[in-house]
Amino acid sequence: MSTWSEALGLAWPLIQAPMAGVQDHRLAIAAAKAGGLGSIPAAMLAPLALRDQLQAAQDAGVECVNVNFFCHRPVPLDAQRHATWRARLAPYYREFGLDASLVGASASREPFGPESLAVIRDFRARVVSFHFGLPEPALLEAVKRWGAFVISSATTVEEARWLEAHGADAVIAQGVEAGGHRGVFLGDDDGSWTGAVTLAGQLSTFALVPLVVDAVKLPVIAAGGIADARGVAAAMALGAAGVQAGTAFLLAPEATTSAVHRAALQGEGANETTLTNIFTGRPARGIVNRVMREVGPICADAPPFAQSTAAVAPLRAAAEARGDGGFSPLWSGQRGCPYRNGETAAEVMSRLAAGFGGRPGS
Amino acid sequence: MSTWSEALGLAWPLIQAPMAGVQDHRLAIAAAKAGGLGSIPAAMLAPLALRDQLQAAQDAGVECVNVNFFCHRPVPLDAQRHATWRARLAPYYREFGLDASLVGASASREPFGPESLAVIRDFRARVVSFHFGLPEPALLEAVKRWGAFVISSATTVEEARWLEAHGADAVIAQGVEAGGHRGVFLGDDDGSWTGAVTLAGQLSTFALVPLVVDAVKLPVIAAGGIADARGVAAAMALGAAGVQAGTAFLLAPEATTSAVHRAALQGEGANETTLTNIFTGRPARGIVNRVMREVGPICADAPPFAQSTAAVAPLRAAAEARGDGGFSPLWSGQRGCPYRNGETAAEVMSRLAAGFGGRPGS
Repeated sequence: MSTWSEALGLAWPLIQAPMAGVQDHRLAIAAAKAGGLGSIPAAMLAPLALRDQLQAAQDAGVECVNVNFFCHRPVPLDAQRHATWRARLAPYYREFGLDASLVGASASREPFGPESLAVIRDFRARVVSFHFGLPEPALLEAVKRWGAFVISSATTVEEARWLEAHGADAVIAQGVEAGGHRGVFLGDDDGSWTGAVTLAGQLSTFALVPLVVDAVKLPVIAAGGIADARGVAAAMALGAAGVQAGTAFLLAPEATTSAVHRAALQGEGANETTLTNIFTGRPARGIVNRVMREVGPICADAPPFAQSTAAVAPLRAAAEARGDGGFSPLWSGQRGCPYRNGETAAEVMSRLAAGFGGRPGS
Repeated sequence: MSTWSEALGLAWPLIQAPMAGVQDHRLAIAAAKAGGLGSIPAAMLAPLALRDQLQAAQDAGVECVNVNFFCHRPVPLDAQRHATWRARLAPYYREFGLDASLVGASASREPFGPESLAVIRDFRARVVSFHFGLPEPALLEAVKRWGAFVISSATTVEEARWLEAHGADAVIAQGVEAGGHRGVFLGDDDGSWTGAVTLAGQLSTFALVPLVVDAVKLPVIAAGGIADARGVAAAMALGAAGVQAGTAFLLAPEATTSAVHRAALQGEGANETTLTNIFTGRPARGIVNRVMREVGPICADAPPFAQSTAAVAPLRAAAEARGDGGFSPLWSGQRGCPYRNGETAAEVMSRLAAGFGGRPGS
């Protein structure tokens, strides 16, 4: 019986994590050519842009790519909440000389829907992954009809079992160390996923991976805190059938990581990351910066996902124009090794793959 | 060059973690006889009681034991803070029919001092470990004079470097998964160690162990989330020179774990743990229960370490008398495997040691 990665023709059971906002098809292509599974994050892409990126990957000769979508259930915009949120940020608008009345209210990320489906169906995408659960049954069924391998993330044993029962082909066990958005989607939360007990209780990679391995029959891919060969070897020792790494690729020339983000990743405070909801409305891990310290890291005023972004965006732009990353989402996971600037994606992949102990396709 | 554990005559580089309140010399003796390093937690022991326990270990033929102390800097009692804390707990006193005016104010744990030193000097304790840093130079020097091997815990790279510079012989890299008190002792905190950024930013075992291994020359012992052979193998893959496990021993018959605590460890909610300061005044990981949900898990009203305990103690006693663990500190780490009731300490040790891959003394 071949493993999931052999079935997909990969040299290594290693996924370059989809990271919306800091990468496109170029990183995916580089990761794929180095023997891993490259990912195209589609959460912030219009269908036409997604089509262009998939075409570029195909033109580059990449046969297997992972297209990643969010599948949250959007909630209606609440004018009162947006007013409260803008009021909370008002001192910063004044500081940067911005007109708060011009700050819009909109969602920065759309969930997977029929238009995106049409695009990936045209390309017969080999791997389709989701964050925040799975799309509605009809949409998921359509994806599976052409044989796509479907992956989603679990932050608890309960979520892993749910994904197995609802059609996933592999589960990513996302430890609390992971950078970017926590994939949490089940629970009696109020929808903000920011309760003190909820957040502090999130399981680490060390605890979550073996629990999920024991709970489901699907291949379990470990994510969170894995940034070098030691991490890969440890994840496999915990029983994982593969690894997903994202933060390790953020400084690669093939990523589109911003200048302030690259600076923060190499700065003194790179190891000080925490979960914050202020950039999008859902908890996500990033390097602690000014807005996280002063407004967050968790702020009850932040509108629900992904409506917090609009009011922060002009502050981010104004600050970044000054070379200041104090209002930017500096996504990063916890990691047990320093960043190495200048490494290509292929070099990162090779360094990580050493953790498999020379067992290709293991 | 022999490893630290070979030098101490251990079969395995595996420490049974000292756990004040849930174990005494009996667990330490059982762990030692099974080839690991058994620990006697002395943080809540009067000198005479400590002497009795060390004598018992000696009588049992155990040559090498780890005596563990806290070395916090106590702060003076503040009557106003205690009044505020009692007021916060007043509804519960009423519920249990307790007279709040009889609730005392005192510290539940004393730091390492001359009296304890005199006891362990008499026994020439082979291993002495500390939590919350190291004792004052004169005390530490006295401990090292008879050749004791000194261990302390680090929660950051900075703390690990500090311990190396100040005389520790080995460092425990304590990931955020660990049960009981976080060992944090450096930083610009206000002394409560409960800042939102501080707490949520704590490094997991996956991230912390390799960072500390790269930062210091001392042997690094991994702690936090390690409860079966997979966890041991993963910790060693991360570069650790040994492992400390505590939660794994809590159900052993040799532990003194209370009935409500044992029930919680085997209950539905055993995987829901978080950091709380309400039982002692410093953050510690335990299973979420009623008082943590309703008063905490972090409460700014809780007096500083270890003065919060006195006001909670009568509620704990009253609740436990009804078989209710809702006011008890149910210390537990995050763990990637279920508890196995009935296992002896020797069986736990043997199951963990399988993770070393049959390399005794490795």
